[in-house]
Amino acid sequence: MRKIAVLCGGVGGARFAQALYASLPDASLNLIVNVGDDFEHLGLKICPDLDTVYYTLTGRNDEARGWGVAGESWHCLESLSALGAESWFQLGDWDLALHLARTEMIRKGARLTEVCAHLVQQSKLKCTLLPVTDDRLRTQIRSKGRVLDFQEYFVRERCAPVCDGVLFAGAETARMTPEVKSLLTGKGIDCLMIAPSNPYLSIAPMLAIPGIREALHNRQFPVIAISPLIGGQAVKGPLVKIMAERGMSPSPVGIAQEYAGLIDGFVCDIADQAKQEELEAMGVQAKFTETLMSKPGVKKTLAETALAFAQGLGAAEIKDPS
Amino acid sequence: MRKIAVLCGGVGGARFAQALYASLPDASLNLIVNVGDDFEHLGLKICPDLDTVYYTLTGRNDEARGWGVAGESWHCLESLSALGAESWFQLGDWDLALHLARTEMIRKGARLTEVCAHLVQQSKLKCTLLPVTDDRLRTQIRSKGRVLDFQEYFVRERCAPVCDGVLFAGAETARMTPEVKSLLTGKGIDCLMIAPSNPYLSIAPMLAIPGIREALHNRQFPVIAISPLIGGQAVKGPLVKIMAERGMSPSPVGIAQEYAGLIDGFVCDIADQAKQEELEAMGVQAKFTETLMSKPGVKKTLAETALAFAQGLGAAEIKDPS
Repeated sequence: MRKIAVLCGGVGGARFAQALYASLPDASLNLIVNVGDDFEHLGLKICPDLDTVYYTLTGRNDEARGWGVAGESWHCLESLSALGAESWFQLGDWDLALHLARTEMIRKGARLTEVCAHLVQQSKLKCTLLPVTDDRLRTQIRSKGRVLDFQEYFVRERCAPVCDGVLFAGAETARMTPEVKSLLTGKGIDCLMIAPSNPYLSIAPMLAIPGIREALHNRQFPVIAISPLIGGQAVKGPLVKIMAERGMSPSPVGIAQEYAGLIDGFVCDIADQAKQEELEAMGVQAKFTETLMSKPGVKKTLAETALAFAQGLGAAEIKDPS
Repeated sequence: MRKIAVLCGGVGGARFAQALYASLPDASLNLIVNVGDDFEHLGLKICPDLDTVYYTLTGRNDEARGWGVAGESWHCLESLSALGAESWFQLGDWDLALHLARTEMIRKGARLTEVCAHLVQQSKLKCTLLPVTDDRLRTQIRSKGRVLDFQEYFVRERCAPVCDGVLFAGAETARMTPEVKSLLTGKGIDCLMIAPSNPYLSIAPMLAIPGIREALHNRQFPVIAISPLIGGQAVKGPLVKIMAERGMSPSPVGIAQEYAGLIDGFVCDIADQAKQEELEAMGVQAKFTETLMSKPGVKKTLAETALAFAQGLGAAEIKDPS
């Protein structure tokens, strides 16, 4: 298997991308990342999912906190607060540079895709980091008559509001980038993975872009999703809460419904093995393995299981082109 | 003396403003600050002279370095450099907050004057900090056929290029703010001080704004300038170099020529006492005192000398309105 694409959200997507990167260091790894969480803050263009993936792959992420840079300092934020400026979004001093540099490149005319390519090159990463679109796409949470921008819901209000619905502002007119279109609609990739990210908040915004859902329906390659649930719990974030608010139990069956018709295989946690029959009745092949990627050794096994699964479903042989 | 206005550049202006502020804590002190050095960097609006005055009055300035915040950290700058972004301008982590907050306020429609008022209020300073204009005004250095923006000349090229001339881009259409106009053209102030700043680079940009030179010519109040030279040397910056490039010797006589017709009194360093006759032949009354404000006790004496001088030249009695 020489060329893989992955649909990624933030932390779960980043850890899974890191696992694949470690398993296949010389393969062509193409990370297609959600931009629905992107926003402007103090004039800076901030791309939380792209940044989490970037910091994780470059080994600079703060594992414990789950976002941002390890060993971060907060002098600018402290000073912003003293000046009476908005300080609810945690901008670290090291992290700020990324937002300043990106915003400046975009102001000078670069596409977000080009900014990411520049970052990957500066860090000598051997993969591509691809925003799913260079156009404006904004995930919004509908809650009891209010519409909250994603970061207002996620950071400022800590996911407390009931989620009645998720909106993707700009999705109708957003286009997937030429780079993403070439991966998803061509015959160039051996498989597509859907990372263990939140299907409603991280993967759905990408699927809302015209042509992406169709590309997955008409796929020329196997698609493997990795479940973000472990025995009814999510590792991080409001997934279980959102499923409950939709009247769903937190089971991989609900996730598989969200991906109906789009995936060939589903990698679930061994804690959810009891759901195998139900999943297979939906026409989804399931594999069960440990998926808690913060546990030593699990990332490697998970990546290998997913890759072997893809191969079993028709992908080319899994190995580095060495 | 209840109401004083000061024309200020950066370090010299800031120290003198601090001296006046300490001497007359309850007077109305109105600092009119040069904006010709302002520039945009990485999308941020940076106002070096306003910032130096602000940091000095709030006691946060780095005395030894002469600019920026004491105890500054440089994580963002280090990271910008690693990302291949522009890093020639030294943006500290604490300092960044000021630029981010200001730029955001201006983007939302505030005048620079309003931003400064907000900063003064946040810091509970009892003075006004007034950009001379809210319009675009850019000091540029002409050097052997090139035109350099001020920060390119001053920071990036460390004042090395020969200065053939100083341009004030935008001066023709810049207007003094209503706040500055009211101070300089009315009868509300008891005296105007011209701080010991560089006359060519810091004071001249202000005098180039239509109406300001005229206001000083038609003054209803005494104007006292403080010489930035001490026995042929400047405390900081390229003043002596620029005077030499103009074929001038570094003497207060040259400075007084620059201010001809605009000032009533000139406070010079005791090291320049030999110039007294020459100055008085030009119609300028001169006082001599120590002016090296980094030396203990000098700031206080200098402020008191300048205030007493103004009083001798017709200003109201010098005391706090207590």
